[in-house]
Amino acid sequence: MEIDDLASTSGEWLRGIGPQSDIVMSSRIRLARNLADFPFIRQCNDIDRANIDSTVRQRLGSNKALRDLTFIDVATLEALDRQFLVERQLISREHANSDGARAVAIDGQEQLSLMVNEEDHLRIQVMKSGLDLDGAWAQINELDDQIEQQLTYAFHEQFGYLTACPTNVGTGMRVSVLVHLPALVITNQIEKVFRSLQKINLVVRGLYGEGTQAMGDFYQVSNQITLGKSEKELIDQVGDVVPVVIDYERKARKFLIEEDQNELFDQVSRAYGMLQTARRISSEETMHLLSRVRMGINLGLIGDLEIPQVNELFIQTQPAHLQKIHQSALSTDERNIERANFLHRNLKSQDN
Amino acid sequence: MEIDDLASTSGEWLRGIGPQSDIVMSSRIRLARNLADFPFIRQCNDIDRANIDSTVRQRLGSNKALRDLTFIDVATLEALDRQFLVERQLISREHANSDGARAVAIDGQEQLSLMVNEEDHLRIQVMKSGLDLDGAWAQINELDDQIEQQLTYAFHEQFGYLTACPTNVGTGMRVSVLVHLPALVITNQIEKVFRSLQKINLVVRGLYGEGTQAMGDFYQVSNQITLGKSEKELIDQVGDVVPVVIDYERKARKFLIEEDQNELFDQVSRAYGMLQTARRISSEETMHLLSRVRMGINLGLIGDLEIPQVNELFIQTQPAHLQKIHQSALSTDERNIERANFLHRNLKSQDN
Repeated sequence: MEIDDLASTSGEWLRGIGPQSDIVMSSRIRLARNLADFPFIRQCNDIDRANIDSTVRQRLGSNKALRDLTFIDVATLEALDRQFLVERQLISREHANSDGARAVAIDGQEQLSLMVNEEDHLRIQVMKSGLDLDGAWAQINELDDQIEQQLTYAFHEQFGYLTACPTNVGTGMRVSVLVHLPALVITNQIEKVFRSLQKINLVVRGLYGEGTQAMGDFYQVSNQITLGKSEKELIDQVGDVVPVVIDYERKARKFLIEEDQNELFDQVSRAYGMLQTARRISSEETMHLLSRVRMGINLGLIGDLEIPQVNELFIQTQPAHLQKIHQSALSTDERNIERANFLHRNLKSQDN
Repeated sequence: MEIDDLASTSGEWLRGIGPQSDIVMSSRIRLARNLADFPFIRQCNDIDRANIDSTVRQRLGSNKALRDLTFIDVATLEALDRQFLVERQLISREHANSDGARAVAIDGQEQLSLMVNEEDHLRIQVMKSGLDLDGAWAQINELDDQIEQQLTYAFHEQFGYLTACPTNVGTGMRVSVLVHLPALVITNQIEKVFRSLQKINLVVRGLYGEGTQAMGDFYQVSNQITLGKSEKELIDQVGDVVPVVIDYERKARKFLIEEDQNELFDQVSRAYGMLQTARRISSEETMHLLSRVRMGINLGLIGDLEIPQVNELFIQTQPAHLQKIHQSALSTDERNIERANFLHRNLKSQDN
C-alpha cells in the first residue's frame, strides 16, 4: 500500500455506521506503550530511535496477526504526505512535525494505527464508526496482546504502564468520542455542556486535536486522567457521558425544528446551495456549511445526499487531501478554488 | 383583458432587447396632459373626476387607433391588484393609493399606459426595452396626437402644456432610463456618478420611483425640469448622458474582472446558488442576488439562464405578483417562503 492509494479510499470511521452515527462520527481508543529495553523518547539519540523503529517493525512482522499492517516511514515523507496522514487521523500533528526515525503502521480499513516514536515508543489506536467504545476496546485489547507477545513493555507493578508523560501512566489509555453538535452551537448551549464535562475531568477539543478551534461543530470528548483507573472505568466514564451529550444535541435539534422549521430548512438548504455553487471557498467555511448539511440530512431536510458522503467531504476538502487529489502542490488561494471545484463536482444535485 | 391575465405574461420592456439592453432595462417617456374643460385634479370634486374618467373613455373609444386600449377601473380594484399594476410600472404608487374615480388604459404589450386622474387628468406613458428614447418618442408623439384629436388639452401659447405641478409645465414630459449598475455599486463609484448627474439637473431614483431605495442596483435616470426646453432637448439631455453612465458601468465591470475574476465568479455563482436553494427569502435579498446574477449572465459567467428570464423574475418576485401567481393573499413570512419556492421552481439548473 502506498500513501497515494489512500487518497482514493476512506477510513472505516467515515462510513457513518454504528450506534448513534448521526451524531457520533467515531469512537477512538489509544494506548501509550513503551519498550522496556529503551530509554523514553525524550532521552533517545538518533541511533536509539532508529533501533526502536527497526525493532518494532521486525518483531511485529514475525507475528501472524500483525503481519498485514503496512509500515509507513514518516521521517522520509514529504510535508504534504505527513499532513495528509494527520487529516486522516492516522498520525498526530506532533508525530508529523517531530524529527528523527519514526513510523506509522496501519491496516487496510484504517481502523488500526500504530505510531512508532511519537511521545511514547508506541501509540496504538483503534478507530470505529459511531459510538462503539466496546468494539474499539475489544479490538485494541487484542492488538495490544498480540504486540505484547513480540515486545516487552515498560510496566510497573504498582503504577501500571510507564509513559513519557505522567498523565498517561497507568493504563496509558485515552478514550475519545468525536461528536457532531451543530444544534448545541446554534442554540448557544455548547459552552455550558463543555463546563459540565470539564467538571468531571473530561476534555473537549476540536476535530484536529489540541489547540485547534472546533471546526464544523465537531468535538472530541475524551478522558484526561488515566492513573488510578482501570480500562473499564475509563471507557465507562466517557461511554456514560456521551449519551447524555447526544441527548442534549437531539433536544436542541427538536427545539430548532419546533421553534421555526422553515428557518432551519432555509439555513440547511442555503448551506447546501453554497457548497454546490461557490467558486472559491476556505476550509473553515466548507466545514461550517458541511456541518449544516450533515444535520439537515439527519433531520430529513436534504434528500439526495448521504451521511458517509458528507463525512468524506469533511476530510477530502482538507488542505493536504485536496492537493493529493489534485496531484500537485497548491497555494492557499489555489486550494480555495480547487476546493470549490471539488465540491461542485461531488455535490451535483441528483434531483433534477 | 382582465388583470389576472397579466400575471402570466410580461411587458415588452422586460424582453431584454434593444440597444444596450445588458445595462439598460428600459426607456420610458411620459407626458402630463390636462383637459381644457375641467379644473385641475386638486380642484376637482367627485363628480368632476367621474366626468373626466367617462369623457376620456368615451372619446378615446371612438378613435380607431386608440380603440384597442383596455381601460382598467383603478378605483374599484383591490389593493393587491393596484399594487400589482405598480410593480408592472403601469401605474404610479400615487395613482394606486389616491381616492376617487380613476383609471388606467393599457395595450396588450404593456408598452403604452394612460393614467386618468393621476396628478394630472392624463399621464401618457410609453415604455421600451433597452435604450430606445427615439422609438419611445415616436410612439408617444403619435399617441399624443391621436388623443389630441379626441380631447382638447389645456395649452398656453407661451408656457406650453399646463400641468398641476409647475415642474411639469411646458412639454409635460419626463424622460426616464432604467439602468442596471451593479459594478458601480460594488466599486463604490455610484454616489460619484449620481452627484455628476445632479449637477446637470438629472434625477436618480430607485426602481420603484421616488422615496424607494434603489433595489437590485437599478436606477432611473430622468430629467427634472421641462419648462423652457423642447421635447428634443429633454430627450437629448438624458439620451446623451446615459451612454456615459453605461460606459462607466462597463469600465467598472472590466475592472472587477481584471482585479479578481475568480472573486467575481464566486460572488455571481453563490448568488445564483442562493436563489436556487433558499427556502425563505425577502424581496430585497432576492433583488440583490438577481442583480449579481444578471451581471453574471452579461459577463458570460452563467450559461444556463437568459436576461429576459431574470428581468421577469425581478418583477414576478415582487409582493403583489407573488400573491397573484399564488392566487391568494399571503403574509410577509408566507411571501418569503412562496418567493423561495417560486425561485426554486423557476431556476432549476438545466446543466446537470
